[in-house]
Amino acid sequence: MESNETMKVTPWEVSGRIDYEKLVKDFGTSVISNQLLKRIEKKTGELHFMLRRGLFFSHRDLDWALDKLDKGEKFVLYTGRGPSGDTHLGHLMPWVFTKWLQDKFDTELYFQITDDEKFLFKDGLELNETNRLAYENALDVIALGFDPKKTFMFVDTDYSGTLYPEAIKVAKRLTFSTAKAVFGFQNESNVGEIFFTSMQSVPAFLPSILKKKNVPVLIPHAIDQDPHFRITRDIIPKLGYYKPASIHCTFMPGLKGVDSKMSASIPDSAIFTTDPPEIARRKIMKAFSGGADTLEEHRKHGGNPDVDIACIYLKTLFEPDDKKLAYIISGFRSGSLTSGDVKGILADKVEKFLKGHQKAREAAKKKLDKFFLHDVPKRK
Amino acid sequence: MESNETMKVTPWEVSGRIDYEKLVKDFGTSVISNQLLKRIEKKTGELHFMLRRGLFFSHRDLDWALDKLDKGEKFVLYTGRGPSGDTHLGHLMPWVFTKWLQDKFDTELYFQITDDEKFLFKDGLELNETNRLAYENALDVIALGFDPKKTFMFVDTDYSGTLYPEAIKVAKRLTFSTAKAVFGFQNESNVGEIFFTSMQSVPAFLPSILKKKNVPVLIPHAIDQDPHFRITRDIIPKLGYYKPASIHCTFMPGLKGVDSKMSASIPDSAIFTTDPPEIARRKIMKAFSGGADTLEEHRKHGGNPDVDIACIYLKTLFEPDDKKLAYIISGFRSGSLTSGDVKGILADKVEKFLKGHQKAREAAKKKLDKFFLHDVPKRK
Repeated sequence: MESNETMKVTPWEVSGRIDYEKLVKDFGTSVISNQLLKRIEKKTGELHFMLRRGLFFSHRDLDWALDKLDKGEKFVLYTGRGPSGDTHLGHLMPWVFTKWLQDKFDTELYFQITDDEKFLFKDGLELNETNRLAYENALDVIALGFDPKKTFMFVDTDYSGTLYPEAIKVAKRLTFSTAKAVFGFQNESNVGEIFFTSMQSVPAFLPSILKKKNVPVLIPHAIDQDPHFRITRDIIPKLGYYKPASIHCTFMPGLKGVDSKMSASIPDSAIFTTDPPEIARRKIMKAFSGGADTLEEHRKHGGNPDVDIACIYLKTLFEPDDKKLAYIISGFRSGSLTSGDVKGILADKVEKFLKGHQKAREAAKKKLDKFFLHDVPKRK
Repeated sequence: MESNETMKVTPWEVSGRIDYEKLVKDFGTSVISNQLLKRIEKKTGELHFMLRRGLFFSHRDLDWALDKLDKGEKFVLYTGRGPSGDTHLGHLMPWVFTKWLQDKFDTELYFQITDDEKFLFKDGLELNETNRLAYENALDVIALGFDPKKTFMFVDTDYSGTLYPEAIKVAKRLTFSTAKAVFGFQNESNVGEIFFTSMQSVPAFLPSILKKKNVPVLIPHAIDQDPHFRITRDIIPKLGYYKPASIHCTFMPGLKGVDSKMSASIPDSAIFTTDPPEIARRKIMKAFSGGADTLEEHRKHGGNPDVDIACIYLKTLFEPDDKKLAYIISGFRSGSLTSGDVKGILADKVEKFLKGHQKAREAAKKKLDKFFLHDVPKRK
């Protein structure tokens, strides 16, 4: 893939080589400063490797959320998933980090699964399919070990009795021209797409409704979702709620190369959580390599870990130990470790992870009720 | 009010002298022919005075609904109310007719109360207020005597767990440009307004969902709502449902004159169902009169019953007997009955109606549960 491909980052399309510095500028977010990192570390005792490595790199009002915490107003977490297909490793990255936040700050998580969104935005995808996928994806979330006492999940169309009446309060304050400017809607856009961001706004103040007091909310998410929350931040203070804070991560590239994405529609681009471990290993072995063309050349000149998918996956998800990671990266760079070596290291880790995850995922099928919010019928 | 004021008829604004023939042409509906009236009469034994007098004057596919009935597929009824204020006499007109249809065809009625719509379309009106008004208005519907076994009412935001997942199926097939062309949305329109018609479409196929088979639906409504159902008719066949049929009525003018409307925001323009009977009488006595300027002139030249509000109210709602009505109208036209006489006849009838209605309305407060559909929580 050409690295000069034009970057495109919207909540529904990410393509091209991503320039994260440019995104921070374009979106108007802030880079996470060293000072802010130190402030987090003081509270958590240690920094998650995704913070140390700049994988979570940008934020809005994270300092404010910590100020609130200092004043005794603990933030809750909100993140989510658009269920357009099976869960792959790229999806796990922000969830793993979110679980760390939940553990370290001992706080609640609201997890929205937007089956309505994926139905509305994808031709040929039916609602019963996105709803089915919602609960499939939920198994992966639960399998990561979130605390059922502090984790509240909901699927939009199964919780719309609660969400819709709140969403229209956002919708009333959002003009078509603003939605168009932020998301690039056209005359051909359907009216559900135009409305949808209102639904994604709700969990930013749902905790305040449920607790009957204002609750700060911190949203960990991949940066492509920022346009939604820019709107949320503009509107919900008018409803009397706090602007949500957010913390943004990069994208995990697909197996085909750093400019590609993991996609359910591109075979071999992604490792799915339900892939048999040996299939995952085979996919890794075929992944894009930053190694030299021949083994001889690689031993002599080394490889480029910055574009090597195995190195990147170790960095983003599978090797939390900085020293071990540095050893692998520098070995690959120097040529002492071959592409096959690094892929082997990753494959071992992924296989091991998948075996455990798939067991936990199976067990999660019996735990769904512990995690899910449903509408309670209103009686007049 | 000037009779040459430009006519405007949208679901959210009706103003000017209404030219119903032009509306039929503009909207593309059909006038109810004598042949069709005869066909109805054959089934019902008698024609409701609103049909005899052309108050229900237009339709879409009413003949098809009767064909279906002949083939053993009984239609159900669907109508509704946008709860922006208290119920007035103008609202009762289509409901009285709908009750007649329910009785004569022994069929179910689905009654939607769109608290979301009125919240979204009216500045300064809050959702808790439109929701409160929804149940206030519902009392008037119930007071008219609908059969609780065959009448299913619902308020949008209290039934959105059922409605929203269906509404997005309509929304996915409705582009912004179509919604704009039909309703005249602007860049300043809010995204909830743009989405809303999807919610109003749902009851046209909700009976089919609830009964798990295709059910013909007939919608009695004032003609200003036709744009919604034009969209519904375009889209829901793509979802596998029948196009709904509809039958349209004229508007009951306000007390200020034939070109005015009953409006909660214009004092003395409307008689509310909760007005004390003596207040209603006083309002009628001040209503616009088609009588001559002086009693002497009136006795000599007579009055114009076509613009006389008392005559019109007798015709549209309070004097079902054609002979009695003809006697009053011709008496007023000739001058043998004065404006005061006719107003007195109307006031007696309205007072009597209100006394009975208000009693029934009070009793309805205990019957709400018998009429209302609520969401049942889904369990996975």
